[in-house]
Amino acid sequence: MKLRPTSLSILLIVTFSLTIYSQKESNLAEKLGYAPDSKLLIIHADDAGVSHSENIATIKGMENGIVNSASIMVPCPWFPEIAAYARKHSKEKDFGLHLTITSEWRDFKWGSTSSKNEVPSLINPHGYFYHLVDSVVVHSKAIDVEKEIDAQIKKALDFGIDVTHLDAHMGAVMSTPDFLEKYIKKGREYQVPVLLSREIVAFEELESRLELTSRDIITDHVYQANPEIYSNLGMEKYYEKVLNELQPGLSVILIHLAMDNEEMKAVTIDHPDWGSKWRQDDLDFFTSQKARRLIEANNIKLVTWREIRDKIVRAE
Amino acid sequence: MKLRPTSLSILLIVTFSLTIYSQKESNLAEKLGYAPDSKLLIIHADDAGVSHSENIATIKGMENGIVNSASIMVPCPWFPEIAAYARKHSKEKDFGLHLTITSEWRDFKWGSTSSKNEVPSLINPHGYFYHLVDSVVVHSKAIDVEKEIDAQIKKALDFGIDVTHLDAHMGAVMSTPDFLEKYIKKGREYQVPVLLSREIVAFEELESRLELTSRDIITDHVYQANPEIYSNLGMEKYYEKVLNELQPGLSVILIHLAMDNEEMKAVTIDHPDWGSKWRQDDLDFFTSQKARRLIEANNIKLVTWREIRDKIVRAE
Repeated sequence: MKLRPTSLSILLIVTFSLTIYSQKESNLAEKLGYAPDSKLLIIHADDAGVSHSENIATIKGMENGIVNSASIMVPCPWFPEIAAYARKHSKEKDFGLHLTITSEWRDFKWGSTSSKNEVPSLINPHGYFYHLVDSVVVHSKAIDVEKEIDAQIKKALDFGIDVTHLDAHMGAVMSTPDFLEKYIKKGREYQVPVLLSREIVAFEELESRLELTSRDIITDHVYQANPEIYSNLGMEKYYEKVLNELQPGLSVILIHLAMDNEEMKAVTIDHPDWGSKWRQDDLDFFTSQKARRLIEANNIKLVTWREIRDKIVRAE
Repeated sequence: MKLRPTSLSILLIVTFSLTIYSQKESNLAEKLGYAPDSKLLIIHADDAGVSHSENIATIKGMENGIVNSASIMVPCPWFPEIAAYARKHSKEKDFGLHLTITSEWRDFKWGSTSSKNEVPSLINPHGYFYHLVDSVVVHSKAIDVEKEIDAQIKKALDFGIDVTHLDAHMGAVMSTPDFLEKYIKKGREYQVPVLLSREIVAFEELESRLELTSRDIITDHVYQANPEIYSNLGMEKYYEKVLNELQPGLSVILIHLAMDNEEMKAVTIDHPDWGSKWRQDDLDFFTSQKARRLIEANNIKLVTWREIRDKIVRAE
């Protein structure tokens, strides 16, 4: 994963890169009970909690499809709906937190979980999170990022969510080495894996300051569609290629599920990329028989963040 | 308007009561340029800003129907969408603020416009406004109510809304004499009329403490459907009766517009009263030819809060 702020500062992910299969990842597979050269995959839905459309699509993807993990945005208005689902299905469904310090849509906004005046550097003049990751990088302080992350985790736990992992909406809490350090720190504090990869730009700078242990999980490959892929290849062909070319190690495919309905069209207005249709295409692929067949044909093992948390991060 | 907290603490309005036509209201009609015994009516849509469904229905009601005023809930996630519309149509559309200190739906929540720790008595343990007016009455302090009202007005003005009036979501800021006093105070401070009627329970107690002037607008009749009306009579028959029996003086019909769609069904889940269908029925009636004909046949004059503000409250 490389963090390259685009004009909309949405996290762009480099794909298809072949990473050398290393001894470390072999250990991870073995710790989970698989052969050392297994292709392990998490099919992960981002952005639950934003809208009703995203919540029902996330649930469909998990119940009718092969989506096996998702992360929830605590500051968003539909958080209580998906939190209730996560709480009710805490044994069989894998939910983490999509830590959020941006509010990117034009007509539909949210702000901090902390009191605004406790995290002033995260809040724009209208009282919401900033629209762009660029603005976060310019204005925000790591101490406020840490406070807000902590407030989101505490609230999710208060709502009874069995938080299996942490990751980052629009990569904002990974956008500088200082923010990334707070994010990793919180993961260690709550003993949950955080999505982390050497493809994250800020990680290169930070790594020398970190003392990584075997409980720090580094994902080998992170795949995510981007606007070029969406317009040139389309979702079905892209995911087919990803699954057919998947390498040994731990991979994550980040997807964005929603119904292409009136609500979601309005949320994503003026924004076809990561828009309503895009998200419906993600849902359609990952609830298809084709996706299931590709997983099987390529001998891919679907693993969850909960397994990684319980068998590695929280191992005795 | 009587404020009788029901099991869901939604404002219930007494209807059909005939109020004696008084000299004072005659003056109001005359000040607006009408005969002293005119039947003046504001057809007012509450709850804009809550959901996309409510926003588009409010716009439809105003553009395709006879809805001639609406009020916006500043703390809600879809506030920026309706604020942009109000700003763009500030000359021809009448928008006030539906002051909000409750968050009543189960799965979809909002909190204060002020920093939470500045208005702690308004905030529940999950960081949202309380669900029920009853909880507001038990927990909230008038000083926090005043701070929050002020923050909502300032934010609306910052967004470029030409605020024509104030009223009260679920009647919460009218639910005690002390809250009501702050509400009236803010109206005077910003020189905007506030929805006020001798049918409000707290007003009886407060009136002796107030020095009312001719710039304090007291509405003669406030009509609103309630669950009994909805199930026994239905919206069409109810509004037909209200319009046919309308008395001279200033009347307001409070309605709740939304599309009966997936988003709104989810917002109002487990709650048929003030639910998705209820709101669609309101929209259907007030965009019908029948409603127009009844206004004409009964010689009802539609007036706006902006006229009242500019010709009376802000008169030289």
